[in-house]
Amino acid sequence: MIRVIAYGPERVEEYPVGHASDLKALLTSKAAVTWINIDGLGDSETFSQLGDIFGLHALALEDVVNLHQRPKFEAYGETDFIVLRMPSPIPDLDLEQVSMFVGDHVLITIQEKPGDCLDALRDRIRTNKGRARRRGAAYLAYAILDSIVETFYPIVENYTERLEELEVRVLASSTDNIVPEIHAIRHDLRALRRVIAPTREVLIAMARADAGNAQDDTHIFLRDCQDHAVQLMEALDTNRELASSLMDLHLSNVSMRMNEVMKVLTIIATIFIPLGFIAGLYGMNFDGQLSPWNMPELRWRYGYPFALGVMASTAIGLVFFFRHKGWLGPGSAPSEPPPQATGETKGRSPGS
Amino acid sequence: MIRVIAYGPERVEEYPVGHASDLKALLTSKAAVTWINIDGLGDSETFSQLGDIFGLHALALEDVVNLHQRPKFEAYGETDFIVLRMPSPIPDLDLEQVSMFVGDHVLITIQEKPGDCLDALRDRIRTNKGRARRRGAAYLAYAILDSIVETFYPIVENYTERLEELEVRVLASSTDNIVPEIHAIRHDLRALRRVIAPTREVLIAMARADAGNAQDDTHIFLRDCQDHAVQLMEALDTNRELASSLMDLHLSNVSMRMNEVMKVLTIIATIFIPLGFIAGLYGMNFDGQLSPWNMPELRWRYGYPFALGVMASTAIGLVFFFRHKGWLGPGSAPSEPPPQATGETKGRSPGS
Amino acid sequence: MIRVIAYGPERVEEYPVGHASDLKALLTSKAAVTWINIDGLGDSETFSQLGDIFGLHALALEDVVNLHQRPKFEAYGETDFIVLRMPSPIPDLDLEQVSMFVGDHVLITIQEKPGDCLDALRDRIRTNKGRARRRGAAYLAYAILDSIVETFYPIVENYTERLEELEVRVLASSTDNIVPEIHAIRHDLRALRRVIAPTREVLIAMARADAGNAQDDTHIFLRDCQDHAVQLMEALDTNRELASSLMDLHLSNVSMRMNEVMKVLTIIATIFIPLGFIAGLYGMNFDGQLSPWNMPELRWRYGYPFALGVMASTAIGLVFFFRHKGWLGPGSAPSEPPPQATGETKGRSPGS
Amino acid sequence: MIRVIAYGPERVEEYPVGHASDLKALLTSKAAVTWINIDGLGDSETFSQLGDIFGLHALALEDVVNLHQRPKFEAYGETDFIVLRMPSPIPDLDLEQVSMFVGDHVLITIQEKPGDCLDALRDRIRTNKGRARRRGAAYLAYAILDSIVETFYPIVENYTERLEELEVRVLASSTDNIVPEIHAIRHDLRALRRVIAPTREVLIAMARADAGNAQDDTHIFLRDCQDHAVQLMEALDTNRELASSLMDLHLSNVSMRMNEVMKVLTIIATIFIPLGFIAGLYGMNFDGQLSPWNMPELRWRYGYPFALGVMASTAIGLVFFFRHKGWLGPGSAPSEPPPQATGETKGRSPGS
Amino acid sequence: MIRVIAYGPERVEEYPVGHASDLKALLTSKAAVTWINIDGLGDSETFSQLGDIFGLHALALEDVVNLHQRPKFEAYGETDFIVLRMPSPIPDLDLEQVSMFVGDHVLITIQEKPGDCLDALRDRIRTNKGRARRRGAAYLAYAILDSIVETFYPIVENYTERLEELEVRVLASSTDNIVPEIHAIRHDLRALRRVIAPTREVLIAMARADAGNAQDDTHIFLRDCQDHAVQLMEALDTNRELASSLMDLHLSNVSMRMNEVMKVLTIIATIFIPLGFIAGLYGMNFDGQLSPWNMPELRWRYGYPFALGVMASTAIGLVFFFRHKGWLGPGSAPSEPPPQATGETKGRSPGS
Repeated sequence: MIRVIAYGPERVEEYPVGHASDLKALLTSKAAVTWINIDGLGDSETFSQLGDIFGLHALALEDVVNLHQRPKFEAYGETDFIVLRMPSPIPDLDLEQVSMFVGDHVLITIQEKPGDCLDALRDRIRTNKGRARRRGAAYLAYAILDSIVETFYPIVENYTERLEELEVRVLASSTDNIVPEIHAIRHDLRALRRVIAPTREVLIAMARADAGNAQDDTHIFLRDCQDHAVQLMEALDTNRELASSLMDLHLSNVSMRMNEVMKVLTIIATIFIPLGFIAGLYGMNFDGQLSPWNMPELRWRYGYPFALGVMASTAIGLVFFFRHKGWLGPGSAPSEPPPQATGETKGRSPGS
Repeated sequence: MIRVIAYGPERVEEYPVGHASDLKALLTSKAAVTWINIDGLGDSETFSQLGDIFGLHALALEDVVNLHQRPKFEAYGETDFIVLRMPSPIPDLDLEQVSMFVGDHVLITIQEKPGDCLDALRDRIRTNKGRARRRGAAYLAYAILDSIVETFYPIVENYTERLEELEVRVLASSTDNIVPEIHAIRHDLRALRRVIAPTREVLIAMARADAGNAQDDTHIFLRDCQDHAVQLMEALDTNRELASSLMDLHLSNVSMRMNEVMKVLTIIATIFIPLGFIAGLYGMNFDGQLSPWNMPELRWRYGYPFALGVMASTAIGLVFFFRHKGWLGPGSAPSEPPPQATGETKGRSPGS
Repeated sequence: MIRVIAYGPERVEEYPVGHASDLKALLTSKAAVTWINIDGLGDSETFSQLGDIFGLHALALEDVVNLHQRPKFEAYGETDFIVLRMPSPIPDLDLEQVSMFVGDHVLITIQEKPGDCLDALRDRIRTNKGRARRRGAAYLAYAILDSIVETFYPIVENYTERLEELEVRVLASSTDNIVPEIHAIRHDLRALRRVIAPTREVLIAMARADAGNAQDDTHIFLRDCQDHAVQLMEALDTNRELASSLMDLHLSNVSMRMNEVMKVLTIIATIFIPLGFIAGLYGMNFDGQLSPWNMPELRWRYGYPFALGVMASTAIGLVFFFRHKGWLGPGSAPSEPPPQATGETKGRSPGS
Repeated sequence: MIRVIAYGPERVEEYPVGHASDLKALLTSKAAVTWINIDGLGDSETFSQLGDIFGLHALALEDVVNLHQRPKFEAYGETDFIVLRMPSPIPDLDLEQVSMFVGDHVLITIQEKPGDCLDALRDRIRTNKGRARRRGAAYLAYAILDSIVETFYPIVENYTERLEELEVRVLASSTDNIVPEIHAIRHDLRALRRVIAPTREVLIAMARADAGNAQDDTHIFLRDCQDHAVQLMEALDTNRELASSLMDLHLSNVSMRMNEVMKVLTIIATIFIPLGFIAGLYGMNFDGQLSPWNMPELRWRYGYPFALGVMASTAIGLVFFFRHKGWLGPGSAPSEPPPQATGETKGRSPGS
Repeated sequence: MIRVIAYGPERVEEYPVGHASDLKALLTSKAAVTWINIDGLGDSETFSQLGDIFGLHALALEDVVNLHQRPKFEAYGETDFIVLRMPSPIPDLDLEQVSMFVGDHVLITIQEKPGDCLDALRDRIRTNKGRARRRGAAYLAYAILDSIVETFYPIVENYTERLEELEVRVLASSTDNIVPEIHAIRHDLRALRRVIAPTREVLIAMARADAGNAQDDTHIFLRDCQDHAVQLMEALDTNRELASSLMDLHLSNVSMRMNEVMKVLTIIATIFIPLGFIAGLYGMNFDGQLSPWNMPELRWRYGYPFALGVMASTAIGLVFFFRHKGWLGPGSAPSEPPPQATGETKGRSPGS
């Protein structure tokens, strides 16, 4: 599906185009900027005609249909070729490939599928809000890049929030198994970093190349957009570090909890084993009738209370010993609630 | 709220301004330097008038109200635009955004909220202490940056002290759960690093740009301030490494303590289990009256003492065996107090 | 074995050459490009004659027969010398050394053994598909490099798939020992990285050197191929990180499983040890006939049910205590299935 | 306290100066080099006079009294300003701040306290050994730097020796708690690195600046000194890596020892628990007189030997089973002494 | 001991020199290249004469006798000064310091002790094999460097083999303590890296300096030698990574083995503890003659078989429960042999 928006400071026209060959007419258009948007990569016929009409390099056209490109900027003669990845709205992290050809008066964008994050930009062009109508194709390219970079903000913020929820749970000493969730978050953070880092390189390369084919100050806008990409990368790095730190905290929690369980259980066993031994002792069948040396305690008047007393004092003695060693009781468990991280939590989100 | 300090080598004037449009009068002021300070970002009207009067770039004005910027330096034509983060006084780590426009004779600072760390600087201007009155707006920009960088010193030092307290506790073999506190400190250290590193880049960029719009030697002052930022970053790195090292020490402590507990308890159990077996043995009910082979010990004169003797020697034998193996007794526990870190503790604090 | 393909825009000739000395005739050939392919490194005679005929540098010829070279590009006067490593088809990772001499009209490739990934390229030359026939030796060199780089894609993808299978198993909380397999995969990923990284450097060096001895735009193709090499390296890095993350997940799984086992078993033991003690208590042989204080319970009418009751309440009490502590029962085990990584799995494979 | 050494190729004078204002006379001195040494930073009066007399920059003078500077080199017009840290003699790591002003004929050094590592250099000047007397102030600055760098050698070597002692203990499978000592050593190594790395940068900056204000070949000497700083840093890195490796070895030792203890103890318990069960079995009180099915073994002629036999064979069977599994006996413990590191231990020390 | 080899394309002379002062005669020698080799650093007289005769810089001569230099290249006027470390033959890693002065026609090498890896080179000069006789002193310097770099190959390969042997053992699930051996290997690998990395820098510096004092293409040879140094460093890095990976595998093995042991033992204990409890239960002495409620089972006809049956079903039930949970039996132990690393093992060795 091909849609064209042709605009200038004075007017804007918008219409669908049925067939790629109809685009030839646009070459003689008087619109200051013509934005051709193509959805879907299925029709190779379309792309070869596009290449013929606008003189696009064959390698660039190969890259357009070859998914899994990393974001890149390549200058082929008069035309700049840009590959980007555009996130679709939350919840699922899905990064659609967007290719852009930027000429003097024509800008072609090619997406994998319909639906994108550029509708706000199109509205601003239609209603002549912002600066887009008064500027050329290079500014439009910047505006598209900026829209895409802005779309990453809520996505990155979403991961920040998920991590902060995990942080609250982990600091509350929960031992829920958060490892798979952190694994999933880290995976997505890596995928985002692999997209945003080269996007920033694209912005740097465009700002450098800007002197050649654009109005004078588009590079200022590109540099501003670059700052946003850097902010996103810092937010990703912060999240990555937070994920690592949470992992450590979690493992420390699990191991402390486990240690505590094992310690208490072992202590119980350790107290009862000597008691059991004493009970076993007086369960022996030495024949006291044959010899006064054989277990005289069994025939004492208070033999049984004596035995219970020995057991009780053994148990109490052991408990005291364990408390003295600090293995049991108030001193052995962490009593205070752990301090909350005092850092500027607001500053951690990438803002908008 | 808008406050103006206009000064030159000879005199200083200070007055509040009710409305942004009143600032137009300042354009014809003869003061060498006019410092306009605005508290609060709420009134977008103010900023658009400000932009019109002083010819500020629209992108810069967008950045002013857009919180969560990282510190940056951007030259828009004649005017330099600087974003910084200013720490509020301890205890809570709160990093307020400060924007600065530096022109030839005018310097505008915009803060999120009233109250800052620049009162000492204002006093020096009022009382003509230091060099500020004799120099231009670029020096004032340096002086503001320097004040902000200085404000980080006690904050970083505070973390150093908290870590050193933790170090004392950890070296005393405490097994208190310090993991959440180290987590919180690390979090703040990362937040500080993310502010101070780009602040240093701002200082570098300003020193490089200084030749254009400032007296000759402001770059020397900027380089000195840069050294301070580097010192702060080194102090942060030292703290980060110390936190890691403390974490290792703590985990080693916890695991040694746990090992010791488990070992002692297991040894107790191991000693009593064979004893219990012997007791159980003589608790068997084989009928000695039917056969002389059935448990003749039960009918010995000294059968019971003999059994107790066997138990005692088993216990003593096991204790000796465990001591011989080094699992029990003096050799098995760390006896010496751990050595104190001998490093120059004074050198670790960032100084002032 | 020596095979020659001589071609130009108009025609293509292909024939085997029996002896290296017969190649001298090619010096006067009028074919635009002559591609000489030599399989096997055994015959040093061949290489010395080759060197004499085409004026190859002795050091380059030494490198040809010296296996275990890392990919490199070296310009010896008019002739460029390139060493590459070519993967053989899956399953086994076997990286054959390929040397290339690129002259103005002659390209010599030397492989360790017959069979390679260049047959598709040869077919394109024979049937005049693609651009090869219309271009010179530098383009042929590019085409060979591109074929080799493309061959790495399915290999890297194969490791991605093996890792994703492992991920599925690990996320399903399997505790199979995947460590040796991850060890093997990491080993191969390292070997691939050590080949692809210098291959990229070769492409960079060739693009830089291209101005000298090639048509004008071969460097555009080389830059495109470079992007593919970077994509491969990113895929390798992603795999490496995934392997690390899987290792962590696996170890966490193993340790959680182990902890769970130990906890349940220890709890069983802890419950039965006090019960055993009570049983042992009433197995003592204190003589109740001599004294009413000696174990009167044994002579109670409901002594045995009383003892059973004490045991039962002890057991129930302990179970409640453990559940209350969260060591046993529903709260203690992770109940939800771990969330699936939501990242764009397609985006992770290097594509083709 | 101010001391002056004025020297030239022909003669040397040395005298104390009571007051900073007396130094003015030195401006007209004809000595080739005048070395002014000031001990103590207490007297701010002295420094302001010094600044006036020799035209020192106010920022440099601030840095002199501001402790905790990192080593740096700054050129203020004609005068170079250098900050260094000088180690005091072992045992304690104490790094005193030394500031240096290097002019054409005058060199001023300012130390925190009396006593330094430069006496050997002063003696060489007094007795005209070495090259110092024949050269200018820049060479003297080099000689001071070189003396300071040399002073670090025995200090670094001391840490190497402490680590090697620890290595011997750890390789002998000691499980002494070496963690706090490694913590302390690492702390000091980090402190040393933070001093030596910028010292090297000072040397690089001086060598670069040398063309301007020194004889031609002082930069050769500075480059040599730079090599020494690099050697020191390599020695520190080696020590740091050795410390990490020792930590790993130690933890592995501790865990192997603990595992061994737990295994042996658990095996003992595991052997005795079935035996205890058998004993308990025949301690049951089923009434054999009421029924021939009730524990006939108790009435066998060889019932007791039979029971002992069952126990013995159970125990032997378990021991065989554990040995077969490799959990017990010769195969389970590391038998060979661990191999000694074969590396060139001499090469590890930084030399002198 | 001083030995001289003077050679040119036509002839070669070789003779010992008794005293350094006799070398003065060589200044007027007509040999194209004069190679002076000195063994032993003891005689400082020799070095000062050497310095006087050939105009060597005093700092270089100091470095010659100062052991523990890292490899470096320094140009002192006409003469290049090179420090290298030469490995002695296996088994022990011993890195001897070799210093080289390279003039236009004279090359001086100074070794710590007699015996080196250069005899093959000397033979090639004597018998006029290879290129050495036809070229100058710079080529001789290259040939010496190349010989030394080649000598590192078998040494690095030796470590590769030791690691591969360890890998075989570790993959066979051995739990032998390989930690000290890996510690020793890592130590040597670090020592080698600290020598080979700066050797490569020497080669780069020489190739850069070559234009000045050598025939045109020695830099090609130096670049080839540089490739070898890079190959060695890659082999070292591979070994280092393999050592890390083996460490992980080993620790995983040890911990899995330990877990398995503990699990089996704990399961045995857990099965017998309830059985022991039942036995203890019927060992209680409640008096059945006083009350029909007191342990009627003891007087049942099939009481004993009943008790045995309860025990057997408890044991079987627990075994089934443990198998169901996957803690015991076929599913719980890794059954398949771990996969072998499939990487090109040949490619891992540095080749020759």
